[in-house]
Amino acid sequence: MSETEFDPAHGEPVAETNLDEDDRLKPEFVASVIAHVEAGDDEGARALVAPLHPADIADLFELVPGEMRRPLAAAIADRLDGDVLSEMNEWVRDELIEALAPHEVAEIATQLDTDDAVAIIEELDDDEQRAVLRAMEPDDRAAIEEALSYPEESAGRLMQRDLIAVPEHWMVGDVLDYLRSNEDLTTDFWEIFVVDGRHHPVGTCNLSWILRTPRAIAIADVMKREQTLIPVDMDQEEVALRFQKYALISAAVVDQAGRLVGMITVDDIVHIIQEEAGEDILKLSGAGDGDINEPVKDSYKARVRWLLANLLTALVASTIIGVFEGTIAKMVALATLMPIVAGVGGNAGTQTMAVTVRALATNQLTQSNTMRAIVREIRIALLNGATVAAVIGTGVALVFGNAGLGAVIAAAMMTNIVIAGLAGVLVPVTLDRMDVDPAVSSSIFVTMITDSMGFLAFLGLATATGLAG
Amino acid sequence: MSETEFDPAHGEPVAETNLDEDDRLKPEFVASVIAHVEAGDDEGARALVAPLHPADIADLFELVPGEMRRPLAAAIADRLDGDVLSEMNEWVRDELIEALAPHEVAEIATQLDTDDAVAIIEELDDDEQRAVLRAMEPDDRAAIEEALSYPEESAGRLMQRDLIAVPEHWMVGDVLDYLRSNEDLTTDFWEIFVVDGRHHPVGTCNLSWILRTPRAIAIADVMKREQTLIPVDMDQEEVALRFQKYALISAAVVDQAGRLVGMITVDDIVHIIQEEAGEDILKLSGAGDGDINEPVKDSYKARVRWLLANLLTALVASTIIGVFEGTIAKMVALATLMPIVAGVGGNAGTQTMAVTVRALATNQLTQSNTMRAIVREIRIALLNGATVAAVIGTGVALVFGNAGLGAVIAAAMMTNIVIAGLAGVLVPVTLDRMDVDPAVSSSIFVTMITDSMGFLAFLGLATATGLAG
Repeated sequence: MSETEFDPAHGEPVAETNLDEDDRLKPEFVASVIAHVEAGDDEGARALVAPLHPADIADLFELVPGEMRRPLAAAIADRLDGDVLSEMNEWVRDELIEALAPHEVAEIATQLDTDDAVAIIEELDDDEQRAVLRAMEPDDRAAIEEALSYPEESAGRLMQRDLIAVPEHWMVGDVLDYLRSNEDLTTDFWEIFVVDGRHHPVGTCNLSWILRTPRAIAIADVMKREQTLIPVDMDQEEVALRFQKYALISAAVVDQAGRLVGMITVDDIVHIIQEEAGEDILKLSGAGDGDINEPVKDSYKARVRWLLANLLTALVASTIIGVFEGTIAKMVALATLMPIVAGVGGNAGTQTMAVTVRALATNQLTQSNTMRAIVREIRIALLNGATVAAVIGTGVALVFGNAGLGAVIAAAMMTNIVIAGLAGVLVPVTLDRMDVDPAVSSSIFVTMITDSMGFLAFLGLATATGLAG
Repeated sequence: MSETEFDPAHGEPVAETNLDEDDRLKPEFVASVIAHVEAGDDEGARALVAPLHPADIADLFELVPGEMRRPLAAAIADRLDGDVLSEMNEWVRDELIEALAPHEVAEIATQLDTDDAVAIIEELDDDEQRAVLRAMEPDDRAAIEEALSYPEESAGRLMQRDLIAVPEHWMVGDVLDYLRSNEDLTTDFWEIFVVDGRHHPVGTCNLSWILRTPRAIAIADVMKREQTLIPVDMDQEEVALRFQKYALISAAVVDQAGRLVGMITVDDIVHIIQEEAGEDILKLSGAGDGDINEPVKDSYKARVRWLLANLLTALVASTIIGVFEGTIAKMVALATLMPIVAGVGGNAGTQTMAVTVRALATNQLTQSNTMRAIVREIRIALLNGATVAAVIGTGVALVFGNAGLGAVIAAAMMTNIVIAGLAGVLVPVTLDRMDVDPAVSSSIFVTMITDSMGFLAFLGLATATGLAG
């Protein structure tokens, strides 16, 4: 070790690292593993994979071609454990799990925390689920079945049942003795929960506070009484927002009666925060789950539905143009210019919509400041509209040598950008008030409005002013 | 307390809650605080704010109108502490900080962890920064100045200097005694770091492991030797990806020589994960920072630049239409239908682009699987194209009673959707290879391609087949 250069990023000799500067497995490494597996050299493949973190082994399965995944799994079977599976993309995981016998899945699930086991088992068909559950120990099985009884994407499915709860009358010393003398307690926890006689949480205690307190002090004097409790049926997106807002490391989960039934830790939440924040862009574009590992037919189904809806809204715009066919026939230049008005308006609408959707998703935009947000967007739209209208109006007037045409396109552009700003904030806010996810359907409406209004304003003004006359 | 209904969400009587079901402050509550401040009843305002969490007080400042923020700050000055400021939206915070004297800012910064203090001070002008630093104690000042010496958005600015590091030869008992007997150690930590004689980290130890181990065991036998070290100059986005990938709670930060210089905890990372994941949608739409608290003139500058770029690309599409003015003059229906081909193609391109940008941002798409992703998108595009082309082709043939026109629009739609699929994956991947952020500039290129190709395919085919002849 002293011979090789020290790599501060991993505390390992540089020569051994298989990751690039962004923590991604290097293509050469992936290719080398594939070559070993294809050559039937399982031992060589295992040696390559040996130093990898479970998260990197999961990535490896995602990076090799689909048809290589099962041979790779067979070659490095001893490393394909619960830790690797719980880090794996769900589509890739399902593909591998389908190839396993129920008792193999049961064995893997038994090694995991309840929440990770549930994440694997909930994706199976009902038949497979039953087969796997039958193959599990009664204790583990009961925990999983209970978790599955909660709604999908709820706190009940995310939580772990293994936690440390102590009575409120204990001293710090009692807690230390309890932790040291009970072999079968969980080993990974960040806070302990203090409960009353009804098993209701009354406080939370960071481990660091316990470590810094003498044995004879009451735990009730060390704990924090203000705590954030998560109802067991809370949606995971709300759980994620709450963790983020209050900077939580772990939180107690309580049932309807207020009893402590589980704990959620931040490491289970981080990927939900990332997914929920990242999926708005996929929803706004109608790309469905938007996962590059999703089977082609699922992606096709999600996306074509959106394109067909878009086709319908395009027909509305098209119908509006149709009304002005007479005007266009007299002055074909209008057909050349009209997509500019619609297109730039569409972009202005998308900008406002993106800002509004993010502000709604992060709870920054509420009833208290909606009116202010609308006024703000109108002011920005007026400035944007004036600038863009001046540029395009002057340009068209000069190029076409037609001041009237320049004035008409400038007025239409101004109108459409202001309408776009209004639609970009009003459509998502209205959908949100109606309890419809604004990220899913806003863009269809906003695009329809900016397209139609762009054509209507431009062709309508051209007709009304007798420009093409 | 026993008289009121138990609220499992907060462990408080329901009657007292000022939050709606999504943890947002209720509009009535915000209005009531404003009314008290406006009436000069500071005591009433303080009483209302008293039970709030710092994160909710920060939200309150964001929710009241701009002109109410300073009066509110004056009314509840005792609650406007570092915890509240570090939770506050940066625009709103800057507005408040500007009203404070340097010694007041210095006092607030002194209460905070280095990372939170830096977040406040780094936003100030150079003059103000110097004034605030001069007003601080030498120790605090040195810590802040050192943090400011690291690049913006790097690990060095995010890290805390207060951490627990112990020598590798200590026993668990030594660690416990050290923690109990040193009053001035930090109280909030989740892991302790074990270092060698050169102050290089050699292992990490969860507090729960220490709590569950007898005093006479060596810390080196309890700690985990494999650990993720963060170089002090690493970009915060990379830090966030690493925390997420390896499910970290805290991590050691090391300097170039491998020495332990700080610690980053997950609660400082969660909002970065959320921001980085959420900002792709804002970047793709050219909405700049996209913060609803950003001053109007900053939003205008960011957005209008994008709209003008978009105007340029719209001119390309417009020029292509101009080439076919003769054809359009002969058959005005082409002008009516052409936006459909361009619009649906644009949507298909946006879908593919959104999926690709997310996959690149989350390190799911690397050199190892790029070719597979391209093939996958082509397959989806062929299916989407066939479906949409069949629908629009049949519809147009029937409505216009013109099978030739139906065939032309179907062929153009198919062509444009396939081109859109290719552009949607190739543009972001190419930008990424050139080390340009694909989220920032992909959509300009993709839209230009789908617009131009849509008009070209449709009008070109109509001309070539002599349809309008």
